[in-house]
Amino acid sequence: MTAYEIIIKKRNGDHLRPDEINHFIQEYLHNRIPDYQMSAFLMAVYFQGMDEGETKALIDSFLQSGKKISLQDIPGIKVGKHSTGGVGDKVSIILASIVAAAGVPVPMISGRGLGHTGGTLDKLSSIPGFRIDLDELKFRTIISEVGTCLIGQTADLVPADRRIYALRDVTGTIESHPLIAASILSKKLAEGSNALVLDIKCGNGAFMQSLSDAENLARVLINNGKRSGLQTVAYITNMDHPIGRAIGNWLEIRECIDCLRGEEIEDLMHITHQLAGTMICLGGKSDTIDEGVAISRDMITSGKAWLKFRNIVQAQGGEIRIIEHPETYPHSEYTLDINAESSGWVKSIGAREVGLSLIQLGGGRKKTDDEIDPKAGIVLHKKPGDPVKKGEKLFTLYTDAKKSIQPVSSRIKSVIQIVAGECAAPKLIYKFLQ
Amino acid sequence: MTAYEIIIKKRNGDHLRPDEINHFIQEYLHNRIPDYQMSAFLMAVYFQGMDEGETKALIDSFLQSGKKISLQDIPGIKVGKHSTGGVGDKVSIILASIVAAAGVPVPMISGRGLGHTGGTLDKLSSIPGFRIDLDELKFRTIISEVGTCLIGQTADLVPADRRIYALRDVTGTIESHPLIAASILSKKLAEGSNALVLDIKCGNGAFMQSLSDAENLARVLINNGKRSGLQTVAYITNMDHPIGRAIGNWLEIRECIDCLRGEEIEDLMHITHQLAGTMICLGGKSDTIDEGVAISRDMITSGKAWLKFRNIVQAQGGEIRIIEHPETYPHSEYTLDINAESSGWVKSIGAREVGLSLIQLGGGRKKTDDEIDPKAGIVLHKKPGDPVKKGEKLFTLYTDAKKSIQPVSSRIKSVIQIVAGECAAPKLIYKFLQ
Repeated sequence: MTAYEIIIKKRNGDHLRPDEINHFIQEYLHNRIPDYQMSAFLMAVYFQGMDEGETKALIDSFLQSGKKISLQDIPGIKVGKHSTGGVGDKVSIILASIVAAAGVPVPMISGRGLGHTGGTLDKLSSIPGFRIDLDELKFRTIISEVGTCLIGQTADLVPADRRIYALRDVTGTIESHPLIAASILSKKLAEGSNALVLDIKCGNGAFMQSLSDAENLARVLINNGKRSGLQTVAYITNMDHPIGRAIGNWLEIRECIDCLRGEEIEDLMHITHQLAGTMICLGGKSDTIDEGVAISRDMITSGKAWLKFRNIVQAQGGEIRIIEHPETYPHSEYTLDINAESSGWVKSIGAREVGLSLIQLGGGRKKTDDEIDPKAGIVLHKKPGDPVKKGEKLFTLYTDAKKSIQPVSSRIKSVIQIVAGECAAPKLIYKFLQ
Repeated sequence: MTAYEIIIKKRNGDHLRPDEINHFIQEYLHNRIPDYQMSAFLMAVYFQGMDEGETKALIDSFLQSGKKISLQDIPGIKVGKHSTGGVGDKVSIILASIVAAAGVPVPMISGRGLGHTGGTLDKLSSIPGFRIDLDELKFRTIISEVGTCLIGQTADLVPADRRIYALRDVTGTIESHPLIAASILSKKLAEGSNALVLDIKCGNGAFMQSLSDAENLARVLINNGKRSGLQTVAYITNMDHPIGRAIGNWLEIRECIDCLRGEEIEDLMHITHQLAGTMICLGGKSDTIDEGVAISRDMITSGKAWLKFRNIVQAQGGEIRIIEHPETYPHSEYTLDINAESSGWVKSIGAREVGLSLIQLGGGRKKTDDEIDPKAGIVLHKKPGDPVKKGEKLFTLYTDAKKSIQPVSSRIKSVIQIVAGECAAPKLIYKFLQ
């Protein structure tokens, strides 16, 4: 069975056997199938899809391409979390501290920013000294001692996904449910999780635009996760508007610190507690999700989550002083307030445009090897549902790139929609699937 | 507009503008778009198709990628011919001699064998000394002096097609009508033809399996040919069974010589005269196709076509002696007759399997750089519709590859279907479209 024949079979919509899928992936990794045949195959999968057996085979093949981290020596049910990516989404950072504080081990292999969305790794990297490139031994040791560890994909963790993801990114084959499922689940299985809470983002700032598409992906992930022995549940959440008030790497860490110290940023903490509570429940520390949510809230009010976060930063080499005194972090050269030109209610703040504006300010990448300015960012003073008076501050921009200020300040004005009539705050969680 | 955005647009089924298509092709040729993005694009075209405007833009872009041969100095309407490829299809060689003898110039840029199908260039190359790699000046001179010239694609003739075809061949994107149309028409426009007769092969030995698929392709080719100023007509012909009695490069040249000398191999000469007559008519040498067919027959009986063929061979450097005494050509080391195991009528001879058997005997390529044994081949002693008696010869195999004899002789037995009841000879020409 040649690469050519496997491509033709998938192109024609015929079922591929597990050995055919595994052969294709392994031959690619050994450079015996070139990128151009892989990208034709990926595009054929985009159009023809994969049934459950094929998706399972792809996950298995991805997983077999590298090492699987064993966390068996660490007692308890290890619970992972994955978000499909959004704007202002710093939930993982707060939640890892909460869930670990509640006694559930959280292995967390995260990603960098992608397109207009931010990445947990970029946010953590804004903390001076914080190491995200730890090896497996260190990863296991920190989870064992602290309860969680947040790192990037190591070289030998699912290399098939790393190489194929890079190819999908430039060949228009990201948005394929079986390919997304294989990418996410292989990593979560390899990082040693026993259960998984998914946050499938849906809306203008997400990769999934429609609820039905998000639900479809959730089903593929849940079914395939369970089939691979990973107890998987999924929330579909609103990504039309940014999450929280800060967008930009260090600004988001600061917001996490505020929340861990007890500040109630409503939309952010509502999603965080719901996901954390679900993880606590899956980890066996509560009988119901609602009980888990109550425990999650208690981890904040008791200060245990804040203490856990400092432990994480310390274990991963970050400067504690700056976490405890975030006001001492270097400041951006330029700041600009954008004020409301009319009064009314905020109806929407386009998440995608906010994410793209952050890139322009220097806080994200246009190309994969771009340097990020961790200080750059946008603070939202108003959120959807808020009343606003003419002249009140809407946004503050932070940047060192002087020439970006003018274009971003015009762009950002059109991102916010202010209407005359009162608006309710948008629904945050659309659906829970298990 | 980046390569990525163009891929996404086509993937999503949106219309591409001519400048977008041209940009994508030219950037690829300048190595600023890599193979893996081109192959993803080609697979997206396979699934989403191209409308007439897009196909026209693709043809134009292909054409612009290289030099266009000008035959304006040669008087008369230049008429090209293209077959989509079959087994035993040596029609071009006989027809070029006939049509040139009738006074219509025939520029003929041909191809090598592809998959299980044979190629005109490989057949001509079996003639000792025959040059298929002539440059443009020589091509024009020979057409001017002899009336036709049969060569391969030169380096500067439609380089876009040459590179993209090689990629399609290994990425499962051959069978896309707009891509086929761009490939064929750009070459026919570049070779200097003013009119074109297409032979769209249909059946188990062809790339088009169904009549509706073949008809669809014919329509795309005719519409786009006309739109580009090439008067295009198409025959859809039966490719369920091999054409003629010889399959194998030199054996087919010998069969051409026999036919040019007046032997009437029925199916082969029926198709040849119909296509040649149509070319003579398009070339303005007859008022109707039927009159053209009569002229074509006259070119054979008068010996003018045979004389023309010798002129071609001489002009292109081939040994005339071997053409005049084909029995002096080297013989295969091994020959084997396959006899009928039962009596009846021949219902079918699977063309595809015959083509694959030829490759096994050494007469075709498994990989693009394989050497061909020009002597290797298969002679069919019976054709569909013929009665056969037990013990009569069905096939003779010719090869130097001893170890192929056993597997091919078992394979070839299952290729022929002999039934008890009388069968009619199969229909050869399904349809004429203009």
